[in-house]
Amino acid sequence: MSTSTQAHTITLLISCPDRPGIVAAISQFIFQHQGNICQSDQHSTDLHSGTFFMRISFAEDSFILSREELVRAFTPIAERFGMHWSVHYSRERKRVGILVSKFDHCLIDLLWRWRSGELEMDISFVISNHPDLEPIVRPYGIPYHHFPIRREQRQQDERQMLEFLLGKVDFLILARYMQILEPFIVHAYPHRIINIHHSFLPAFVGAKPYEQAFERGVKLIGATAHYVTERLDEGPIIAQDVIHCNHRDRLEDLIRKGKEVERRVLAQAVRVHIEDRVLVHGNKTIVFD
Amino acid sequence: MSTSTQAHTITLLISCPDRPGIVAAISQFIFQHQGNICQSDQHSTDLHSGTFFMRISFAEDSFILSREELVRAFTPIAERFGMHWSVHYSRERKRVGILVSKFDHCLIDLLWRWRSGELEMDISFVISNHPDLEPIVRPYGIPYHHFPIRREQRQQDERQMLEFLLGKVDFLILARYMQILEPFIVHAYPHRIINIHHSFLPAFVGAKPYEQAFERGVKLIGATAHYVTERLDEGPIIAQDVIHCNHRDRLEDLIRKGKEVERRVLAQAVRVHIEDRVLVHGNKTIVFD
Amino acid sequence: MSTSTQAHTITLLISCPDRPGIVAAISQFIFQHQGNICQSDQHSTDLHSGTFFMRISFAEDSFILSREELVRAFTPIAERFGMHWSVHYSRERKRVGILVSKFDHCLIDLLWRWRSGELEMDISFVISNHPDLEPIVRPYGIPYHHFPIRREQRQQDERQMLEFLLGKVDFLILARYMQILEPFIVHAYPHRIINIHHSFLPAFVGAKPYEQAFERGVKLIGATAHYVTERLDEGPIIAQDVIHCNHRDRLEDLIRKGKEVERRVLAQAVRVHIEDRVLVHGNKTIVFD
Amino acid sequence: MSTSTQAHTITLLISCPDRPGIVAAISQFIFQHQGNICQSDQHSTDLHSGTFFMRISFAEDSFILSREELVRAFTPIAERFGMHWSVHYSRERKRVGILVSKFDHCLIDLLWRWRSGELEMDISFVISNHPDLEPIVRPYGIPYHHFPIRREQRQQDERQMLEFLLGKVDFLILARYMQILEPFIVHAYPHRIINIHHSFLPAFVGAKPYEQAFERGVKLIGATAHYVTERLDEGPIIAQDVIHCNHRDRLEDLIRKGKEVERRVLAQAVRVHIEDRVLVHGNKTIVFD
Repeated sequence: MSTSTQAHTITLLISCPDRPGIVAAISQFIFQHQGNICQSDQHSTDLHSGTFFMRISFAEDSFILSREELVRAFTPIAERFGMHWSVHYSRERKRVGILVSKFDHCLIDLLWRWRSGELEMDISFVISNHPDLEPIVRPYGIPYHHFPIRREQRQQDERQMLEFLLGKVDFLILARYMQILEPFIVHAYPHRIINIHHSFLPAFVGAKPYEQAFERGVKLIGATAHYVTERLDEGPIIAQDVIHCNHRDRLEDLIRKGKEVERRVLAQAVRVHIEDRVLVHGNKTIVFD
Repeated sequence: MSTSTQAHTITLLISCPDRPGIVAAISQFIFQHQGNICQSDQHSTDLHSGTFFMRISFAEDSFILSREELVRAFTPIAERFGMHWSVHYSRERKRVGILVSKFDHCLIDLLWRWRSGELEMDISFVISNHPDLEPIVRPYGIPYHHFPIRREQRQQDERQMLEFLLGKVDFLILARYMQILEPFIVHAYPHRIINIHHSFLPAFVGAKPYEQAFERGVKLIGATAHYVTERLDEGPIIAQDVIHCNHRDRLEDLIRKGKEVERRVLAQAVRVHIEDRVLVHGNKTIVFD
Repeated sequence: MSTSTQAHTITLLISCPDRPGIVAAISQFIFQHQGNICQSDQHSTDLHSGTFFMRISFAEDSFILSREELVRAFTPIAERFGMHWSVHYSRERKRVGILVSKFDHCLIDLLWRWRSGELEMDISFVISNHPDLEPIVRPYGIPYHHFPIRREQRQQDERQMLEFLLGKVDFLILARYMQILEPFIVHAYPHRIINIHHSFLPAFVGAKPYEQAFERGVKLIGATAHYVTERLDEGPIIAQDVIHCNHRDRLEDLIRKGKEVERRVLAQAVRVHIEDRVLVHGNKTIVFD
Repeated sequence: MSTSTQAHTITLLISCPDRPGIVAAISQFIFQHQGNICQSDQHSTDLHSGTFFMRISFAEDSFILSREELVRAFTPIAERFGMHWSVHYSRERKRVGILVSKFDHCLIDLLWRWRSGELEMDISFVISNHPDLEPIVRPYGIPYHHFPIRREQRQQDERQMLEFLLGKVDFLILARYMQILEPFIVHAYPHRIINIHHSFLPAFVGAKPYEQAFERGVKLIGATAHYVTERLDEGPIIAQDVIHCNHRDRLEDLIRKGKEVERRVLAQAVRVHIEDRVLVHGNKTIVFD
């Protein structure tokens, strides 16, 4: 749900042990300070001893507290219930760095959706370990930085990349970036690096998954978007989808369909991330979409 | 979402003009009487002058008010905000009457889902204007009533059927019931009669829609479940879905696919209705699913 | 595509090394003997050195050869091109044995589709290692045989079951039959035993896959229908589909959705099997649907 | 299915009254001249008195006839069976003119798929009645022509556009071109102008369909691609699809989802058109995909 034609909103993301009184306390807090709730979602893993999750948005214009005042005033409530919480202003668009290698399908799709206003974020730059996609990015007026990653000095190269990134972006999108990120980058952006990869039923281990899928005659090609954690491709899942295929699909058709579903799923994951709709709980997500 | 393994819940369905303080008042009310909110959804048609909708569920076991006390205690809040509201106890399963004619696909599907525990409702009886489907219903131990509708005395026949229904069921499912209900029946069950019908892109007016769809070479067959109002097939939509087709599908294949999507969409609509997830606003629905 | 309203057809299923002249030879053969082709599909794995697959159907009424004459007359063509081939008469409905344990969702769905004429096959009997589902089967007038499988004498029990089966059925459906079949049963029905199981993205190894999927927060639940081979659940895939889910889905909801997609996918696989639309090549299928 | 990594092919599209011997004659013709069939699809509207449709492709490299020789040699066969037929060489990429107004989503999607090699066609130019989208097209090196259509002299303006088009393109794509084409343009490209438009269940007549769909609370937004005929938006349907929506979708979200499904469906229709997979029969299509 886009916020473009609406007044700006403030969004609280909250998780804490479930117990009575949480919603009452939060909504009372917002009401007292003249916020008008425009959207609220909650989820409990279990009614009696579970974890409670909430996303609650209210109009910024009528709200009488500044950001600092909000933090100060809300902290006692948060402490009372043992909350993890964060506050987000829709007015402050997230700054993103997009990482790519040579595949362009996800990049082009993101750029179009960004320019059309569908993805309300600021693209600080595109980074690539190859120079190839620079001509695609140039017309959009977005800087393109070529950071080669040399196998023999990967750590050093990625260290340099991290130094470049720090302070400039709020999250990263791996739009078919074919390098494994070093843990020190992953740790710098916890649950703030979104990756996309193909998924198959059944799963195929090892190299050349499309070839394996083709050999096995799968009837579906899928894609999974997830947050990057240290465990490669096993981070919390944000979005998934599939596309049907059959024996007529040659290897190249499977790859084309894979691209189709990858760009759709990645866009979906980016959209819910920038609208602050995702909470992470252990290795799974709550997506209030 | 099924409630079968959970403790019983109380659900409030609320709509009123939107303004600050509604959520705070409701959640405070629940908290004060020791209810623990397990699910809450809300929606506003417009932030500043729109209509507010809410579905809020809380555990029944810890809640200290009886139903009468709840109504008495909540009424002042409802009046303050000008609410339309209703209260629902998951413990009290809804009683349903299923109306059929000769097609059995929706009926069989409902019976299976009901017996498997997926649809938590009590089927009071099946009513039909034909005797044909009685053998299907008998093994389930559900009464089957044959109410013929004679063209020359339709009003009289339906009047008799209404008299039979009153007090025995909370809502009706038209599971391919091929008679048009008289307005006095529709008025007796406002937004409590669920109908299912096929839908086509584009729409086909007049008789034999499948033949028309076949002639036109449509690539999709759809189904729409809606609440019955006086305007035939134009009541608030509860659920919709489609199934793909192509030139290989003969007329009989389109009809088969139509049945497939009809039973899936009808089951979806019945499920959200019995779980009190649907609010009607004008001629549209808010479905908190 | 159903054949119910059509004249009966004869279907040839053919595979052979690809080379020019195959289609010409086959279609000339049919034409010479006054067959009128009503459907024809072909596929080549590779244009120049691949394998050729064909399914070709023609009307039986005008065709002048008896089955024996057809076999005799076609054999020289088959030998010239090195064909694997088989001939199928739509008039001869396949006889099936359905194996179940305690889950009833696939069984009920198959029975309904069979009775509605959607699945044109003869159900010889239902076999189960439990007595539980007998009441479901009885109203359909289909024999229900209880074949307990005792762990300590599994081989002996299955041997007995096989003896019962032989000569009575053309193929088997494992409609959530929770026993692993001994290789001697699998070999007795090569590519003629259809199994259904859930599929997840990513795949989960080990026990309690739904629990694992729930813990991982998957956004999709899938199902795969395949032919049974000696390698458990790794036979040629016939059909696959998925259903979306989210954090609101409790474990029981995932299981419900899994049933929904399982019965849909199993019915699809059975339909293409009984209409002779499936050819197996190595460990994959060509489905001419 | 892409042909990019294959040898070039020759494709025959054929329709004629159904009767025995057609397939034999065609495949014999191809075999005699050393063509190796790589794909063949056929369809009959009715076995005994219907229309027969065929798409048959064979490798060009081994085929011994030139185009002129093919036409000369095949004509007697075509006359014998009363065929409508055409021949297509994959080597000869179709030349297309894309017509747009101000919406860019379909245009950008087509350009990306074209550049990625997914759509094997030559884009001769983009034509628009507005200058706005020129900057999008320029980086691709494709000419952009601004043809304003003035209400008071529409016929004259479109006549001028037609003169420009003739001889330069093989087909047209209306990628959200918001002008109604004059019949003389439609007649110049029979079944060779592809249009895309949104589709709703139910259909909404009159202006502002998205507003109407929003008011009605639809749960699906669809798109239909079809060939343009004189009857506005009622030409033969090539492809259709839908996307789900719910009460949370504001008007702007419905429009965004509409764009998503429009570009997907349009690309699908263009792909099957340029691969010569579509035959038109009356007001419906046979799509051999």
